[in-house]
Amino acid sequence: MATNIEIISIGNEILIGDVQDTNTHYLCRELTRLGGFVRRAVNVRDEPRAIAAELHGALDRGADLILTTGGLGPTDDDRTRASLAQALGLPLHLDPVALDMIRQRYDELHAQGLISQGGVTEARRKMAFLPQGAVPLWNPVGGAPGVRLDVGGTIIIALPGVPEEMVGIFQSSVQPLLREHLGAAVYLERTLIVHLVDDSVLAPFLKTVADAHPGVYVKSRASAFGTDTVIRVTFSMTGADRAGVEQQIEAAMRDLCNALAAAGIYASIAAD
Amino acid sequence: MATNIEIISIGNEILIGDVQDTNTHYLCRELTRLGGFVRRAVNVRDEPRAIAAELHGALDRGADLILTTGGLGPTDDDRTRASLAQALGLPLHLDPVALDMIRQRYDELHAQGLISQGGVTEARRKMAFLPQGAVPLWNPVGGAPGVRLDVGGTIIIALPGVPEEMVGIFQSSVQPLLREHLGAAVYLERTLIVHLVDDSVLAPFLKTVADAHPGVYVKSRASAFGTDTVIRVTFSMTGADRAGVEQQIEAAMRDLCNALAAAGIYASIAAD
Repeated sequence: MATNIEIISIGNEILIGDVQDTNTHYLCRELTRLGGFVRRAVNVRDEPRAIAAELHGALDRGADLILTTGGLGPTDDDRTRASLAQALGLPLHLDPVALDMIRQRYDELHAQGLISQGGVTEARRKMAFLPQGAVPLWNPVGGAPGVRLDVGGTIIIALPGVPEEMVGIFQSSVQPLLREHLGAAVYLERTLIVHLVDDSVLAPFLKTVADAHPGVYVKSRASAFGTDTVIRVTFSMTGADRAGVEQQIEAAMRDLCNALAAAGIYASIAAD
Repeated sequence: MATNIEIISIGNEILIGDVQDTNTHYLCRELTRLGGFVRRAVNVRDEPRAIAAELHGALDRGADLILTTGGLGPTDDDRTRASLAQALGLPLHLDPVALDMIRQRYDELHAQGLISQGGVTEARRKMAFLPQGAVPLWNPVGGAPGVRLDVGGTIIIALPGVPEEMVGIFQSSVQPLLREHLGAAVYLERTLIVHLVDDSVLAPFLKTVADAHPGVYVKSRASAFGTDTVIRVTFSMTGADRAGVEQQIEAAMRDLCNALAAAGIYASIAAD
């Protein structure tokens, strides 16, 4: 598996502005630090046709991994499983492994005194209907199993929208998968703090350094004028070995520091 | 103008997980409350081809308004203006109005003692190159003008990525435009707090109410088991008149309250 990743975040509550989509931010951060490349992330509504269009788009672009969040719960507007099946022309069937997972989780939650009834009810049974060929992923936090579905060379993994549950399945099922596929890939990032407030002054310096170090991604983050006295410049790179990546990032940082110093602009390396 | 809105958020810093995209959340919230319908929001990298693909997708889906955020600054990886021009087959030209805006803003920022040099420099001049036919939008906070471009029946507006600047141009240029086009459209939302922790118990009640009130959008937001003792259910609707929308939302809430009460489940209306 290469590393092209797309994220599809599903749920009207995000697009009506009720909820900030923190899941996508978490996933972008974690996936990048594992050596993955997140190319694109989209928020769509709980509509099977919209979800299908995004899935087909990601498959057409040759994504290696597609992660969806949201729409796995027991309520009627949780439509990710059905949308996956519909988009890929697969029948939905009652998956016995998923059903066992659901029974076990609700029995546990009941035994812990967190809910008033264990076992499988009609609404809970809905979460065991998976597209043919899909594999349920154990949810260590909540009731809804995640779903893994391999389509050609692409792995599709559907995660819940409740952040704790999303993180739970990500850590137990997605991280190990990525570690296996990405192997020793390493992502490093360092930040330079430049004592300037005007990014138009910084622009030509950044261009020179970025052109000289094409493997290193150099990005400045401006703040509104008057709100900060510095500009943060991030140097990042994904590569096969830590020493090589470190060396290239260091060289780019050094070049920028030297060029700025020659122009009388002070810069310091951030502690993080 | 109808109300189909798409948001394209541009910037690698979001997809590598360095920055949480708060702009999209702000826009979804404000646009919805103005009576608009945000159908989709996407994060893409600072790559002209990816930006062009998203623009074409939104135009093909018949969006009435496309808002982009990010990529309007003076640095080399700020590529939104050039990407817009390239995607739409328009030449980039030095816009004299944009150039005047930039001169005036940097002179003001200099007069306020926020930057060390006023006027137009080469890096700042870059921000005055707009696609042919575009109109610059005054930036009351920072240096980069926003950009408005009408393509057929679609209005495209490019906003900066720095949140304060994005909000500044949104409030001064986008809000009045939407108010004019959307007229008296009203969006209302009310929240019911249901004293339950298990959304699988709530699911059949929600379905009954949603089916009986198809104009009202009924959405539950579950938390991880053990982290909360309630489930929030949001009732929302966009419509032409406030009284009608209020009435329909009230009716749906009342039905859910009554059905839950009959099952011995307590619910209360949230103060907000």
